[in-house]
Amino acid sequence: MKHNIVFVLVMVISFNSICLAQSGQNSNVFNVDTAHASPYNLYGAKYPRIEADSRVTFRFKAPYAQKVQVSIANTPFDMVKGADGVWSYTSEPQDKGYHNYWMIVDSAIVVDPVTNAFIGYSRMCNGFEIPDPDGGFYELKNVPHGDALIKNYFSKTTNSWRHIFIYTPPGYENNKSTRYPVLYLQHGGGEDERVWIEMGRTNLILDNLIAEGKVKPFIVVMETSAAYKPGEAPPQPRPMAPVARGQVVQPPSGARPRMMFSFDTYKEVMINDLIPFIDSNFRTLTDGKYRAMAGLSMGTFVTRVVALANLDKFSYLGIFSGGTISPRDISDKGKVKLVFMSYGSRERGADGLKIAADSLQQAGINAVAYVSPLTAHEWQSWRRSLREFAPLLFKN
Amino acid sequence: MKHNIVFVLVMVISFNSICLAQSGQNSNVFNVDTAHASPYNLYGAKYPRIEADSRVTFRFKAPYAQKVQVSIANTPFDMVKGADGVWSYTSEPQDKGYHNYWMIVDSAIVVDPVTNAFIGYSRMCNGFEIPDPDGGFYELKNVPHGDALIKNYFSKTTNSWRHIFIYTPPGYENNKSTRYPVLYLQHGGGEDERVWIEMGRTNLILDNLIAEGKVKPFIVVMETSAAYKPGEAPPQPRPMAPVARGQVVQPPSGARPRMMFSFDTYKEVMINDLIPFIDSNFRTLTDGKYRAMAGLSMGTFVTRVVALANLDKFSYLGIFSGGTISPRDISDKGKVKLVFMSYGSRERGADGLKIAADSLQQAGINAVAYVSPLTAHEWQSWRRSLREFAPLLFKN
Repeated sequence: MKHNIVFVLVMVISFNSICLAQSGQNSNVFNVDTAHASPYNLYGAKYPRIEADSRVTFRFKAPYAQKVQVSIANTPFDMVKGADGVWSYTSEPQDKGYHNYWMIVDSAIVVDPVTNAFIGYSRMCNGFEIPDPDGGFYELKNVPHGDALIKNYFSKTTNSWRHIFIYTPPGYENNKSTRYPVLYLQHGGGEDERVWIEMGRTNLILDNLIAEGKVKPFIVVMETSAAYKPGEAPPQPRPMAPVARGQVVQPPSGARPRMMFSFDTYKEVMINDLIPFIDSNFRTLTDGKYRAMAGLSMGTFVTRVVALANLDKFSYLGIFSGGTISPRDISDKGKVKLVFMSYGSRERGADGLKIAADSLQQAGINAVAYVSPLTAHEWQSWRRSLREFAPLLFKN
Repeated sequence: MKHNIVFVLVMVISFNSICLAQSGQNSNVFNVDTAHASPYNLYGAKYPRIEADSRVTFRFKAPYAQKVQVSIANTPFDMVKGADGVWSYTSEPQDKGYHNYWMIVDSAIVVDPVTNAFIGYSRMCNGFEIPDPDGGFYELKNVPHGDALIKNYFSKTTNSWRHIFIYTPPGYENNKSTRYPVLYLQHGGGEDERVWIEMGRTNLILDNLIAEGKVKPFIVVMETSAAYKPGEAPPQPRPMAPVARGQVVQPPSGARPRMMFSFDTYKEVMINDLIPFIDSNFRTLTDGKYRAMAGLSMGTFVTRVVALANLDKFSYLGIFSGGTISPRDISDKGKVKLVFMSYGSRERGADGLKIAADSLQQAGINAVAYVSPLTAHEWQSWRRSLREFAPLLFKN
């Protein structure tokens, strides 16, 4: 790691660790109305700085660069070079919650080394966090905490080891006679199994809801839906053009979106490898009425492919920012205990949710629509979706 | 996360997830003698490519940049621009194991977005991995696996939540009447609690050693030594100049190095907050003869400050790439069951280890010196140090 490095220097620079997940899970609520460093900044870096009015100031030192931009949630903005070679930019006020950003230095997309890095867009990104006065539900509080576990299991389907994150609720360790329901929770496109912990704060959201008595404790399993059998070649990533601010293209509400990838291999992985592994290594309730599946964005398609085809194994479905489900999508209405559908209010598609839920209700299927106020196709929509979805699970 | 993004595009780019920790823990052994993508590359990225002879080829697209360098373990190398705007460089053969790298684009240090990012040098870095034919000891194998847990606990000393990684050995879940020894394992300068899992592969190394019967199962606790009381201001990071290849400055062998930071606050955190939290939340053996502390580089100083001042609480000491310990450092020889000291053979200091160990032995203190062949101040030295250290723990 520190090949050929001056030992004493290492000590000099090393002593301000505001560590990743620690800072990532520190309070943002209490910073409301005060300019402050983004909580993901490393080692006391002052920028990105979150201004009191939710604008964000970026600084980036590049004295010899011709042009530097900061891309906020995939929209680039020109920075201005100062006499000291430091480029700066202050954004418009940003929506509450987590946002990706990255730097574009003389046309090259790069990651700013001063903030923690997060998976997104099929590569690493930077992140910052805008405080939300109503964000206490995802803060680290003095309540009993569950565990986030990192596990590996071997998949016969892919003939490879696969990596999973698992949340076990407070008390799981000691309540040795208790068995728990399980939620399988899927990431979005270009992401992987880390995101529902690192950006979604699933563990903190559930700790807090359980402490309030709003949620019956359950286990959460998070895994990547990328899965290939031996000989199956994964597609290569393609460059993604920046899109104009506000441009969001969604599949037609209520329609089954056109699939651009098959999730059939992942369906086999889940049914034949993952669920048996979880049920034999954790104290789960294995009946389908105690199993839920949900996903965000692309993860909603994974949820459709796996859960709608296996309604004997899944009774609760969560569709976060990924279209809607119609009665004709459901082969056996008696087995579905809940269809939960959500969007951020800034997403196209939000308007169609209530109609879709009404349609399901009329067909005799319990359905709930939720719209996250003033948020887009981003994590604040999905944190809130989880907060709304979790209390409805495993109630009947 | 994907604010204002074309939904279908997200799907197009998203389907080749070779996820962080999964790829990070896949086999490198079997790639020996075959050119291959580095296992930390995301989404099928072909570069960095590890050549069959352990050279590494880097590619980086930056058509409008004036100058692009790749810095390998903090030594920059000029890349050459191709007609397609892609810069390339093939390195000299690299030592076995994990190495940091990053890009320098028109003088700006940045992270290449196509590989997973790792904490180091007080910021995020890229990483690649050179296969080691003898590296099976840190590979993911079909043996019983322990858990890596992410935990938060509240420190009264710092008046803040702190974030820890904990390894529990295979069987911990089910052997409800068994209590376990504990190793407290410290990161180096500019790092944090993640590194002994993400780069060090502590969980896999111990899983494998336990499966071979070489190690008595124990718990490992990993936390950052950065700790400040309310009002204590952490120092700001300073820029670090690249150093010439081969330049390594170490404290004099056998001498107590000059401390540039106080670890006194962290000592209070460990003794008053962390150890009581661990002992009350895990099934530990709480007598000092069942507690060890070790660290790499700067972490050796943390180990000195905490453990040498509390020999009633720690009986085994590991000093990886951080000088030596002399008999006069040890106030109560009867309480020390082992002093283990190691270096990579390319580090200055390696030559002095045996003399230091002999000196301790002559003073009646059990001491072991280990030199990792053909490695520097990097992770392969520390993975091997853990492999050598772990079997010596909690034996007497």
